[in-house]
Amino acid sequence: MHLSEVVHPNQLHGLSVHQLEQIARQIRDKHLDTVAASGGHLAPGLGVVELTLALYQTLDLDQDKVIWDVGHQAYPHKLITGRYDRFHTLRQKDGIAGYLNRKESRFDHFGAGHASTSISAALGMAMARDRRGEKFKSVAVIGDGALTGGMALEAINHAGHLPHTNVMVVLNDNDMSISPNVGALSRYLNKIRLSPPLQFLSDNLEEQLRQLPFNENITPELMRLKGGMKRLAVSKVGAVFEELGFTYMGPVDGHNIEELIATFQEGHQHQGPVLVHVATIKGKGYEIAEQDQVGYHAQTPFNIETGKAIPSSKPKPPKYSKVFAETLITIAENDPYVIGVTAAMATGTGLDKLQAKLPKQYVDVGIAEQHAVTLAAGMACEGMKPVVAIYSTFLQRAYDQIIHDICIQKLPVFFCLDRAGIVGADGPTHQGMYDIAYLRCLPNMVMMAPKDEAELQRMLVTGINYTDGPIAMRYPRGTGYGVGTLEDGWESLPIGKAETLRQGDDLLILAYGSMVYPAVQTADVLSEHGIRATVVNARFAKPLDTELILPLAREIGQVVTLEEGCVTGGFGTAVVEALMDAQLMVPVTRIGVPDELVEHATADESKAAVGLTIPQIVDRILQAAKKPALA
Amino acid sequence: MHLSEVVHPNQLHGLSVHQLEQIARQIRDKHLDTVAASGGHLAPGLGVVELTLALYQTLDLDQDKVIWDVGHQAYPHKLITGRYDRFHTLRQKDGIAGYLNRKESRFDHFGAGHASTSISAALGMAMARDRRGEKFKSVAVIGDGALTGGMALEAINHAGHLPHTNVMVVLNDNDMSISPNVGALSRYLNKIRLSPPLQFLSDNLEEQLRQLPFNENITPELMRLKGGMKRLAVSKVGAVFEELGFTYMGPVDGHNIEELIATFQEGHQHQGPVLVHVATIKGKGYEIAEQDQVGYHAQTPFNIETGKAIPSSKPKPPKYSKVFAETLITIAENDPYVIGVTAAMATGTGLDKLQAKLPKQYVDVGIAEQHAVTLAAGMACEGMKPVVAIYSTFLQRAYDQIIHDICIQKLPVFFCLDRAGIVGADGPTHQGMYDIAYLRCLPNMVMMAPKDEAELQRMLVTGINYTDGPIAMRYPRGTGYGVGTLEDGWESLPIGKAETLRQGDDLLILAYGSMVYPAVQTADVLSEHGIRATVVNARFAKPLDTELILPLAREIGQVVTLEEGCVTGGFGTAVVEALMDAQLMVPVTRIGVPDELVEHATADESKAAVGLTIPQIVDRILQAAKKPALA
Repeated sequence: MHLSEVVHPNQLHGLSVHQLEQIARQIRDKHLDTVAASGGHLAPGLGVVELTLALYQTLDLDQDKVIWDVGHQAYPHKLITGRYDRFHTLRQKDGIAGYLNRKESRFDHFGAGHASTSISAALGMAMARDRRGEKFKSVAVIGDGALTGGMALEAINHAGHLPHTNVMVVLNDNDMSISPNVGALSRYLNKIRLSPPLQFLSDNLEEQLRQLPFNENITPELMRLKGGMKRLAVSKVGAVFEELGFTYMGPVDGHNIEELIATFQEGHQHQGPVLVHVATIKGKGYEIAEQDQVGYHAQTPFNIETGKAIPSSKPKPPKYSKVFAETLITIAENDPYVIGVTAAMATGTGLDKLQAKLPKQYVDVGIAEQHAVTLAAGMACEGMKPVVAIYSTFLQRAYDQIIHDICIQKLPVFFCLDRAGIVGADGPTHQGMYDIAYLRCLPNMVMMAPKDEAELQRMLVTGINYTDGPIAMRYPRGTGYGVGTLEDGWESLPIGKAETLRQGDDLLILAYGSMVYPAVQTADVLSEHGIRATVVNARFAKPLDTELILPLAREIGQVVTLEEGCVTGGFGTAVVEALMDAQLMVPVTRIGVPDELVEHATADESKAAVGLTIPQIVDRILQAAKKPALA
Repeated sequence: MHLSEVVHPNQLHGLSVHQLEQIARQIRDKHLDTVAASGGHLAPGLGVVELTLALYQTLDLDQDKVIWDVGHQAYPHKLITGRYDRFHTLRQKDGIAGYLNRKESRFDHFGAGHASTSISAALGMAMARDRRGEKFKSVAVIGDGALTGGMALEAINHAGHLPHTNVMVVLNDNDMSISPNVGALSRYLNKIRLSPPLQFLSDNLEEQLRQLPFNENITPELMRLKGGMKRLAVSKVGAVFEELGFTYMGPVDGHNIEELIATFQEGHQHQGPVLVHVATIKGKGYEIAEQDQVGYHAQTPFNIETGKAIPSSKPKPPKYSKVFAETLITIAENDPYVIGVTAAMATGTGLDKLQAKLPKQYVDVGIAEQHAVTLAAGMACEGMKPVVAIYSTFLQRAYDQIIHDICIQKLPVFFCLDRAGIVGADGPTHQGMYDIAYLRCLPNMVMMAPKDEAELQRMLVTGINYTDGPIAMRYPRGTGYGVGTLEDGWESLPIGKAETLRQGDDLLILAYGSMVYPAVQTADVLSEHGIRATVVNARFAKPLDTELILPLAREIGQVVTLEEGCVTGGFGTAVVEALMDAQLMVPVTRIGVPDELVEHATADESKAAVGLTIPQIVDRILQAAKKPALA
């Protein structure tokens, strides 16, 4: 059988290990070819090919549920669940998603783009099963990186307390998250991986002890140890999980299909929660990725022979994250109390550069956004200037900490929200849509967004110099506008002050962050239609520069707001609230991301899908201008 | 020395154990008298009197930092840090706060009303200390209940990986959170508490083994065990923490000052993270509380002799949570797939009644809001109808799970947000202010709020019957309006439909949830001023009933919105957005909680402080009516 013929994982039932190994090779080839051509997550999927095939040999996927933590390890799953033919459309508009999606396939039992959710979901399904008197198996597959996320540990704590609820956790231990793992749990797992299996001790030892010619005085003491001997054995290979109520199995070689099948089969026999510890190699089978697991976690299109990225046709301006990191390094070199904090996003945020240069001014806490934020709160209490760099979408994980530990105490923590706005191919789970709305309602929060990479530099200085309380800066994924960076002139911006970029009497365009340049371009097009627009770079969504904005709105009488975020409760809403509070009855057209999910596509395609291209914006404005306001 | 003379904890340095025991008794008396008179948290503080005194004997609180997890265990701390004289003002307006507060005292090193934050904050302070070359000690005191919160486990994982960062975690293990603890970790701690200390084994055993007349064949195998013997000993008393990189000490009797001092002193000698496991009795010293630790976690004023609550002068209508619980039980009795889910808020939400009646349709996951929400997501995938009852303020902890696991997947999970709005004496950390704003920006979310307890019943039915996606209901802390509950007629409300309560041509008042009755009362007063108001009970903040609201706004030409939540991005903003999107230029006065923190006080005092009493609302409306709208 060839992989292309597999449209249902049950078709693989009954294949020999040798045949499965052939399928494994075909999965690797297809996986590698596809990601090399279109970009996507590479090393995670390559590491779980055998795990996937072996697990599915022991399951009936028409009934049983498998919840893959962070869908990016599930490309092999996709290839044997009816998506081989369309796999070349990976991460493209209307194509196969880069993460799991319940709408895409009935075999995607739970979607996930964020880490650490799978055990909770699998346990919820298991409890529903038992309540409904059903019989299916419920399995979570979670990476060792994702296991350090607090909610995964909450779920372990809960599941371990339910001895009659059958749920299996497959720990895909590749000793990595996106970056090398952080934390004691990771070190512990590593110790287990490197220990020789000691299980035979627990089998033999009791018997051997019984045969010892014991000294009478010592016998009672040793007898008290008898019951502990098994514990001693497992203390090498899983005591923490056993103490937390799980049956621990492993470690198992994650690339040995036969051993995996046997272990999973045995695991399914156990009552209650079972943890199967599988040792895998991230990037397995593609040597270049095995050697550089961080670099090949996810990739843009690349040459398979060399592993080198295929250069894009034209040179691009530097990425925001690069400008962010380099500027932060320069500031931190001159201020020993500036410290960069991230949560397993070192490469994505650029903080890996800070780590390389100033390791003492850098902390990566692993996949643990909540802890990262409150850790920063503690640092701020004691005179440090923490710069917390977390993607907009992942900062959602620390929302309560932002409110309870930072805003209520008015602590000077600086949040740098990378990937704010449309993220492109990663799709709905990763869109940075809500941060303006979810931060704006919090007392004491200051919010800003730069129009380009040079302004990002000035805002970075502004945020670090601001000591009155929390402050946040959002900036988009990807490249800046190529305006160049500032060599000097890194003064703080005045808090809450906007910048007028262009004057015109017919229309007031207020733009925030990444939409400032499009606002200027829109004004250019509008001038061809005879509409002269004033364009204001708002710089701050909170506090809003009402001193500038209100008189302009009153004089001009027609306002458009532009933002790359949800329109509900966002920047445009801030403008509308301010006008209304001043009883200024001026019509406002709020342009941003409508109240719906934005699917995966290129960033440009997504912008077109939500109406954020220049022609769409111009159309919207022209139409609004036609409709007279009512009162 | 008498407690009243203690204004600085260092004054207690050098006192004998006997003298400290006297102070302990004085603390207990004052604590008990104060809470009996004014209400507040009782049992948590009584359990840590000796712990506090002993710990502070080993610290210099001018330098050293102590972070009390959930400030409600810190009343003894308050009594020896200069607040004895004012302690009778506990939880009263302008009086001593019920939680810690950095503004209240320089000895309150970190404020907390939510659980599980202390280790992160203490570690952040420790890292700042080391970076700045300072020397103070950093200590977190955390309950065993709070330890199950994911962020505490994230912090343990991080701290355990930092062998050179001195930080002490004092585990106040009273085997309870507010309710009895849930989870494997709690069971594990319990096992430790109940085991005899086995440390002597590790000291003696190696020597004894060496003296054994070993059979030659067995010697090598036993010798391999030698190194594991110490591990065996600690596996009884703290292996999980040791494996996670902590030096584990304990368990220590939490009411033996001498033993506590010795243990803390030893703990301070250790390099790296140390966990001191202290076994305390919640409510210690007040027998009635020791016998009923759930009931006496926190109390309204009560008679110390009998322990009975002092009845309020007049009979009160039933609490919202009571009506919620009783109605849910009736529904759940008829639908076996309805399941109540909470996160250590069983008594507060009333779900303890569901547990008593239908234990199979009830889940308490412990302090683990993130897990609770995604567990519910898993349940919803498999045909259950989860009703997630979590306070508005604590649901902040699960914000990403609401977005990523529920809204994106459009799963039918029903969120019931108790304590939404002003909470009174618990103060800023507990105010349920932000839920309207933080939920409204999420695609697929439906949001409703009942005007009274009878409408709560209908909304409960509505939420359970709604299967199209997520739906949330918010309702306030405290009692309903005494309108009685429905015996039948529990039909679903039409989604997104408002209700007109009163007609008038001069003003349109749109009210949400708890502000509907005040809106009617406001209209009554306004009619005395010759202003006839239409009053609409919005019922839904999302989707908003624009079919009803827009034509009314247009006809009447003047709108007031009323809500018990932050005005920034809240219900009134939804109305303003809808008017603006329809280009309806009608002035709107948004009345709600302004963009600032609401301090502790009675609920009525807080409402007055933010302008939500009827006379204040009337004034605001009359003033707005005077100012003509500008355009």
